[in-house]
Amino acid sequence: AHIVTLPGDGVGPEVTAAAVAVLKAVAARYQHAFSFDEQLIGGAAIDACGEPLPGTSLAACQAADAVLLGAVGGPKWSDPNAAVRPEQGLLALRAALGVYANLRPLQVHPALANLSPLKNEKLRHVDVLFVRELTGGAYFGAKTRSADAATDECRYTVGEIERVVRRAFELARGRRHQLTSVDKANVLETSRLWRSTVQRLAADYPDVKVEHQLVDSMAMLLLTQPNRYDVVVTENLFGDILTDEAAALAGSLGLLPSASLGDGKAGLYEPIHGSAPDIAGQGVANPVGAILSAAMLLRHSLELETEAALIEAAVDQVLRDGPRSRDIGGSAGTAEMCGAVLAAIA
Amino acid sequence: AHIVTLPGDGVGPEVTAAAVAVLKAVAARYQHAFSFDEQLIGGAAIDACGEPLPGTSLAACQAADAVLLGAVGGPKWSDPNAAVRPEQGLLALRAALGVYANLRPLQVHPALANLSPLKNEKLRHVDVLFVRELTGGAYFGAKTRSADAATDECRYTVGEIERVVRRAFELARGRRHQLTSVDKANVLETSRLWRSTVQRLAADYPDVKVEHQLVDSMAMLLLTQPNRYDVVVTENLFGDILTDEAAALAGSLGLLPSASLGDGKAGLYEPIHGSAPDIAGQGVANPVGAILSAAMLLRHSLELETEAALIEAAVDQVLRDGPRSRDIGGSAGTAEMCGAVLAAIA
Ligand SMILES: CC(C)[C@H](C(=O)O)[C@@H](O)C(=O)O
Ligand SMILES: CC(C)[C@H](C(=O)O)[C@@H](O)C(=O)O
Repeated sequence: AHIVTLPGDGVGPEVTAAAVAVLKAVAARYQHAFSFDEQLIGGAAIDACGEPLPGTSLAACQAADAVLLGAVGGPKWSDPNAAVRPEQGLLALRAALGVYANLRPLQVHPALANLSPLKNEKLRHVDVLFVRELTGGAYFGAKTRSADAATDECRYTVGEIERVVRRAFELARGRRHQLTSVDKANVLETSRLWRSTVQRLAADYPDVKVEHQLVDSMAMLLLTQPNRYDVVVTENLFGDILTDEAAALAGSLGLLPSASLGDGKAGLYEPIHGSAPDIAGQGVANPVGAILSAAMLLRHSLELETEAALIEAAVDQVLRDGPRSRDIGGSAGTAEMCGAVLAAIA
Repeated sequence: AHIVTLPGDGVGPEVTAAAVAVLKAVAARYQHAFSFDEQLIGGAAIDACGEPLPGTSLAACQAADAVLLGAVGGPKWSDPNAAVRPEQGLLALRAALGVYANLRPLQVHPALANLSPLKNEKLRHVDVLFVRELTGGAYFGAKTRSADAATDECRYTVGEIERVVRRAFELARGRRHQLTSVDKANVLETSRLWRSTVQRLAADYPDVKVEHQLVDSMAMLLLTQPNRYDVVVTENLFGDILTDEAAALAGSLGLLPSASLGDGKAGLYEPIHGSAPDIAGQGVANPVGAILSAAMLLRHSLELETEAALIEAAVDQVLRDGPRSRDIGGSAGTAEMCGAVLAAIA
């Protein structure tokens, strides 16, 4: 299998290197032949060639079996009015790969519950899979800007809604058969289309229990009843906000992975944390989010379930009694965390 | 002073009656002459005259010194594809009154910290004032719907941003001199206009420390560092989501008030909870959010600061050692809660 890596900016290169080391260890243990090809994205790409997603990077991703990304962005390129910004590279990549379904699983490791801002009793049995629509909505709609006004258009077609909602229904079938669809149907037209599409598709999945929540209520319910949810599906911007809120429950952003899938070949895998410029280059970033993203890559793009589960079990063991990086209350560096996972795999 | 009440739907009439009783007690104690005029809005107005904001209601509100609203909406009128919906009445009223700045204060009462989903140590010194833009953005932008697509336009003019941001700066001056502006400037054009407008206005308020946060980060920071924030200003939809998230921290939605202010005469005051159809008509709704909204009405529309503070002190005392409604762990009804506040005022 051929994997393109996009280390990107900030701590991206550090955590990507750790995830690649883990993938190589798995390949060695199971005698798989994985080839890796490192490409530029984000601020690093702007610095090297003036654009956040060079054509060579995109072509490499499109030819790959899977893409593993670190993080993009940082203060160096953070002027929101700059003509070229690192985030544009990531958005263009998501669109070009057609990865419309962004899977963000949330579980709270029992050994880390004390790090969560939420009371421990709230965190029991939290096991949510967010499915965020990733290639539509206000992120990709028409924009205008004049001296005294600006606009962003949020647009959804029935087809865009159907494909991501069907994916969410299928995922719910493999879990606890519950789907929560989040919208703002009391105000937004796109949300009304979203809701009626979910209602119509529900007939095809009679074994899945469907509920609808308004996005404002959901922001509250994630805190008061986080263990009530199984699969949560929502549009791009709501998903961006709600998954970051939910991520805070885990105790550290550094722990959480994501997978972005389309109908095409290459899935895109990235930890949900950002480039963390404050700790970049120091070798102290937690590589767990990137390593678990590599596990999702094995599961969803390479169909190597046993290998994916092995990595997850290794991470579970390290979080239980291994070294801890700073974000989770210890002082271990990236290399030590990665080494502990490698030892647990071997 | 002339106050229009809009009890609306669900528990709206019950909590509005309690707030009016408190306003009458204050009027008696300080010998103010308050007149009250009850009008229809929401589902109740749809049932009575087929529209969610009848012309008579609007005219009464426009002629009033202040408007006190209960809640709108409920399952009876909840089909998102219905031509006429209760929420339209509230949105039309906000627009017609020009109340562009929605103030939502959040404090966590020490006696109720155990009800919050957040760990107690996180809740110490939480004292945030959200200023949500209330008459612009995707709520009021152009909408389209066809058989296979829908759109919502989010639009902001510099003028719309300036007036609400200036209000937030002024409010920060009366508090701890910190302003956090929330946007999604790495993706949205309206957010880039928002951010550059805040940056420009900051020069007029050198005594206020300004920071910018992305909405996804903010959804997380509200949980991990809620005591870091003073005044938080943001656009309509982000404000809707973030203030409900923040409200969960208080332990019950039933406790929180809001004030919506413009440059015109009548301010609009409402508890942030909804119509709570599950408990409507049972006399068990917590009236504290509505009563504290009445206190904000005295402060912001009638400039009766002493009277406002008296109500707040009475509520504080009741929450400390008075009866408790169901949502805060007791069994007191609306009337008993209201009676306790009245007793503390007398
Ligand atoms: C970097 C940014 C454009 C991105 C997004 O908003 O989608 C990030 O916040 C994410 O959630 O992956
Ligand atoms: C009822 C609804 C239209 C309203 C809104 O979204 O503004 C409510 O959620 C609020 O926050 O006041």
